[in-house]
Amino acid sequence: MIAKHGPSITLAVAMAAVLAPVSSVLADEGMWLLTRPPTEVLKSRHGFEPTPAWLEHLQKSCVRMGASASLVSADGLVMTNHHVGVDDLYKLSTPQRDLVKNGFYARTRGEELKCPDLEVQVLWSIEDVTEQVAAAATADMPPGEAYEAQRKAMTRIEQESKDATGLDSEVVTLWHGARYHLYRYRRYTDIRLVFAPEKSIAFFGGDTDNFDYPRFDLDCCFFRIYEDDKPLKPEHFLKFSRQGAADGELLFVLGHPARTRRLVTVEHLKFLRDIEMPTVLNWLWRREVQLGVFCNRSEENLRIGENDYFSIQNSRKARTGMQQAMLDPQFMLRKEQAEAKLRAAAKSTEPWDRIAEAQRVYRTFFNRRNTLREGYPLESKLFEIARALVRLADELPKPSPDRLREYRDSELDSVDLWLYSPAPIYDQLEIEGVASGLTLMAERFGADDPLVVKALDGLSPQARAERLVRDCTLKDIETRKRYVKEGKKAIDASEDPMIRFVRAVDPESRSLRKRFEDEVEGVERENYAKIGAAQFALYGEDLYPDATGTLRFAFGVVKGYEQNGRQIPPFTDFAGMYERWKERGPQPPFDLPQRWLDRRDRLDLKTPLNFVLTADIIGGNSGSPIVNAKGEVTGIIFDGNPQSLVWDIAFDDRQGRAIAVDTRAIIEALRKIYDADELADELMRE
Amino acid sequence: MIAKHGPSITLAVAMAAVLAPVSSVLADEGMWLLTRPPTEVLKSRHGFEPTPAWLEHLQKSCVRMGASASLVSADGLVMTNHHVGVDDLYKLSTPQRDLVKNGFYARTRGEELKCPDLEVQVLWSIEDVTEQVAAAATADMPPGEAYEAQRKAMTRIEQESKDATGLDSEVVTLWHGARYHLYRYRRYTDIRLVFAPEKSIAFFGGDTDNFDYPRFDLDCCFFRIYEDDKPLKPEHFLKFSRQGAADGELLFVLGHPARTRRLVTVEHLKFLRDIEMPTVLNWLWRREVQLGVFCNRSEENLRIGENDYFSIQNSRKARTGMQQAMLDPQFMLRKEQAEAKLRAAAKSTEPWDRIAEAQRVYRTFFNRRNTLREGYPLESKLFEIARALVRLADELPKPSPDRLREYRDSELDSVDLWLYSPAPIYDQLEIEGVASGLTLMAERFGADDPLVVKALDGLSPQARAERLVRDCTLKDIETRKRYVKEGKKAIDASEDPMIRFVRAVDPESRSLRKRFEDEVEGVERENYAKIGAAQFALYGEDLYPDATGTLRFAFGVVKGYEQNGRQIPPFTDFAGMYERWKERGPQPPFDLPQRWLDRRDRLDLKTPLNFVLTADIIGGNSGSPIVNAKGEVTGIIFDGNPQSLVWDIAFDDRQGRAIAVDTRAIIEALRKIYDADELADELMRE
Repeated sequence: MIAKHGPSITLAVAMAAVLAPVSSVLADEGMWLLTRPPTEVLKSRHGFEPTPAWLEHLQKSCVRMGASASLVSADGLVMTNHHVGVDDLYKLSTPQRDLVKNGFYARTRGEELKCPDLEVQVLWSIEDVTEQVAAAATADMPPGEAYEAQRKAMTRIEQESKDATGLDSEVVTLWHGARYHLYRYRRYTDIRLVFAPEKSIAFFGGDTDNFDYPRFDLDCCFFRIYEDDKPLKPEHFLKFSRQGAADGELLFVLGHPARTRRLVTVEHLKFLRDIEMPTVLNWLWRREVQLGVFCNRSEENLRIGENDYFSIQNSRKARTGMQQAMLDPQFMLRKEQAEAKLRAAAKSTEPWDRIAEAQRVYRTFFNRRNTLREGYPLESKLFEIARALVRLADELPKPSPDRLREYRDSELDSVDLWLYSPAPIYDQLEIEGVASGLTLMAERFGADDPLVVKALDGLSPQARAERLVRDCTLKDIETRKRYVKEGKKAIDASEDPMIRFVRAVDPESRSLRKRFEDEVEGVERENYAKIGAAQFALYGEDLYPDATGTLRFAFGVVKGYEQNGRQIPPFTDFAGMYERWKERGPQPPFDLPQRWLDRRDRLDLKTPLNFVLTADIIGGNSGSPIVNAKGEVTGIIFDGNPQSLVWDIAFDDRQGRAIAVDTRAIIEALRKIYDADELADELMRE
Repeated sequence: MIAKHGPSITLAVAMAAVLAPVSSVLADEGMWLLTRPPTEVLKSRHGFEPTPAWLEHLQKSCVRMGASASLVSADGLVMTNHHVGVDDLYKLSTPQRDLVKNGFYARTRGEELKCPDLEVQVLWSIEDVTEQVAAAATADMPPGEAYEAQRKAMTRIEQESKDATGLDSEVVTLWHGARYHLYRYRRYTDIRLVFAPEKSIAFFGGDTDNFDYPRFDLDCCFFRIYEDDKPLKPEHFLKFSRQGAADGELLFVLGHPARTRRLVTVEHLKFLRDIEMPTVLNWLWRREVQLGVFCNRSEENLRIGENDYFSIQNSRKARTGMQQAMLDPQFMLRKEQAEAKLRAAAKSTEPWDRIAEAQRVYRTFFNRRNTLREGYPLESKLFEIARALVRLADELPKPSPDRLREYRDSELDSVDLWLYSPAPIYDQLEIEGVASGLTLMAERFGADDPLVVKALDGLSPQARAERLVRDCTLKDIETRKRYVKEGKKAIDASEDPMIRFVRAVDPESRSLRKRFEDEVEGVERENYAKIGAAQFALYGEDLYPDATGTLRFAFGVVKGYEQNGRQIPPFTDFAGMYERWKERGPQPPFDLPQRWLDRRDRLDLKTPLNFVLTADIIGGNSGSPIVNAKGEVTGIIFDGNPQSLVWDIAFDDRQGRAIAVDTRAIIEALRKIYDADELADELMRE
């Protein structure tokens, strides 16, 4: 499955997006801004012209929830992938009520289950604020300082917008600083679970078939947005298509692709290939084995650990495909040729040299920065909570623009939602993640490193992990609130072992982040902006920016492909699913839920289940609605095939395909397998 | 399971064994030489006195076959672990005849299956050759040169012995050069499979229960040695005990522990902890994930790949336990204190400083040496064969003592056995291992490294692997023989892609080996010998040397232990096995063969299945017979518990235990489950 939040290889490159030149656009390439759709291409190639009203309708029917989703009924139903909603299924499960294994259907509104900390956003308006942000930095500022000044300006703009409109406000950096757009979102936090199939049908074939095709996954689930304790009555929502998609049909994908790096410089790419990719893959292999061992130890371990386990497997499989492309000398040659063309056209090659120099600098502290970056080194919710508490105590007394960006005022509602979430925390899983993280520090820095000595505090990693988790007081939500209320004094006086741990390791973590922003990210940003300008100059303005986790518009046609001399047809159906089950089941991950075996005869086995299309997607597009020219939903994106894994760096639709669930399969399963006619009727209502 | 060949962390330390001081010997510590048994300890602590005849009988009943085994009938039956024999089971299997999954029993001699390339050795005589070897090096030689001169002397001694006696002859370095012993072996190469249970009962609980206790594994299998096409009539063999072992009973373990590092210096240990262990673990995690993915892809992939997969899992589990001990600051403190005592007593601390310096030097080229050492970088039999052919072409024209040690005359019979083995080679598994190895080189050296560029030859790792394997001509045994016959000219002219690959990468591999021997191994050897001498001076001569893969004698008592406040009894039984099955089965790895379910009622469920004892073992002891004071077999070693994983570096029997299969379970299963009364009768014959 394509990652829910996209691969976050570094924070650096997330901001370092570069333009893809239209002249090199292959077929249906592009993750376009809704404010700048590829009108010419659509018209000339597909004879389709999107109207502003059509685009607004799609925009306001889309939902951001980690990855992508859409409003699909007049009563606030939200459709996304099972693998996007599964975090919430785990949070709502107990040993007695396993929603992941057994699925869920609320036959009445009263049975719908409120998610403990889920929030969703609908993009409501877009405003160009490029001039205001650009003006914050002056030409004589060093890169780190300029970057910081612009970040502060963005925070001020966001705050003013929030104060004026009450909407969530976010300044989005497009073309790495060639443009800045202010996005305003409607935000909802009362989200209730309506329907989820069993994991074994949603993720049929598991890691083995993941990122592969043909596929047979009912990777969907449904939530409902509530406002004032009543179902939302949205102004815009998508209707289900009655016909479904057809081979060769032009379709549109609306979603939140997280990050692409289509024209990262060759030297930067070599850094990613030779330094970052091996480090990330080593970490993924390590965690996959460790979590696999943890899950195998007991049924309960499996229940509480498998979500992390699958997520690691998924990342590993995506990276493995990306790595093979990066290691293909022909692929690198093409990148070099494209870069040579642009360098020849540019006024100066200095931006490329400066970026290469930033990578050389980064190599000197990559190991420590990578190990101590946000979200690391411990795999532990308690650690995350303790780190937030320690940082909040430092940050909250400052004016909002001076804080770390994740603690600026406009973010505090979201921080509260997860920081005070009643979602369960499992000691066993916490201990596993803490012991793993402590051991990782020793592996990466050596056990005699002063930070490691402090971290272990005289104990083995396992013994230290047990103490950090078992004695941690932060499992209690009121205690967390007390720390936030009492601030730095309470943190400094705290005897909580996890808070003391964070106080020991966080200063280096923060100082490495600062160094990274000044010496790497700031330099990259300034110089990628110049490369971006060179591309505008060479190719004109009709370009799409690299993905940034914000709403985009892609298009493509339903189309099979050839692989090893074999033609792969675009659609699969239920009949194919039962064949695959017969071939590889009934062992996991090729087991089917009992009711799918019992009710097989009720199904129209020819119902299309999954299909592929040429639209340009990436991690974060999971759950994206696929609509036809009439704006009706015909499917949801849930994956890409192996040949699409390189799309992070370069689009290529000779074989690469996005993979979708067909809405016809959803309706058929709801009616025949789940006795969920009410839900199916709501989706099919005119 | 304890590793068949023991963990081979580096070649360096394999030769760098150091003494364990008797003064620190805990309870039943020690892997003693049969020529120097711990008579005093046995007498004073256990009231037992081994006689020379008793020791000779045990020695000549033992068999070396990779790991350990023993002769157990007058007709040449050999007993070892299933996990020791499993390599041969895989080699004898086909998609139609899966001996690993289904087990095997030859009801008649005629049905016994000849193993394609299995050889076994029986230790026949031992001679002290210390003076001859020591004399080869003079005081003024630099360490590398002295080391080489001694290796040549050893080769000459071996060759003279072989010429004189016809026996396999091997000079064993004990106490890292304080002593050299010439071991002469009888060698047999016609070995036939008699009986193996199904893997699911031999390895019940799989990776989850591996290295754990209580356990329920029937980890045994039986071969028969043939000589001149007739069953061997051995002069010595072990009889099965009628009573079996009892709680508290003194027992003896005879086997071939591969390598211990009981008193490696603290600085050397830190190198292992901080540099080598993370590298090895990263490699194991990587291969575990890759092979797991490979095996999941199809039933046939599982059949051909699972042996490698389990072997990687097993190493990973052993290392993980070892790493936790190394990262325990208390453990390191005890090592430091022991070393301080010895340094204080020594004439000079120079040996410790020289070894520390060698580690510092090694750090500078560890990455390349580790990646290109023997057996790497490709995980491929065809690569191993091609490397042997290229090296043989270089080495055979030289006089035997001047060759790489693995190609000296005395080794050539063994080389022939595996080089011309008809054991199957599977393209798919080869391609997987070659692609993995090529990618590893790029990860470790960077893709622009000249060696990597040569290795990939313009292709992606996967594409290059397909070509190297599919176009390789070495699957044909006659072709291999032709290269050996025609020598260097044929190699230089070869168009075989794998031979050309080896010619491209092997020069650096060989030069790194030379550098390692001169600058690291040679220095370690010289200085560990001095530390050894210091220990003889401090503690006297009644010591055991570190394990060297040669026959040793350990002792201990049957004894349970306490863990997390719970008392673990020493014995398990069939009843416990069925309980565990009920709790965790029937999914693998907790599935039981159908006949074990069908015939449950025939079994005496109270029959002891596995037991633990305090004897000092390590990887390589797998398959070791356990005998009582009368010299009768009561069990076979097959594993150690988690607390024994640190025994590589320090013995501790407060909780650490060896784990054995009880021979009573073997007899009961043969008679009641497998209808193998003939075999049981042969084993129980008076």
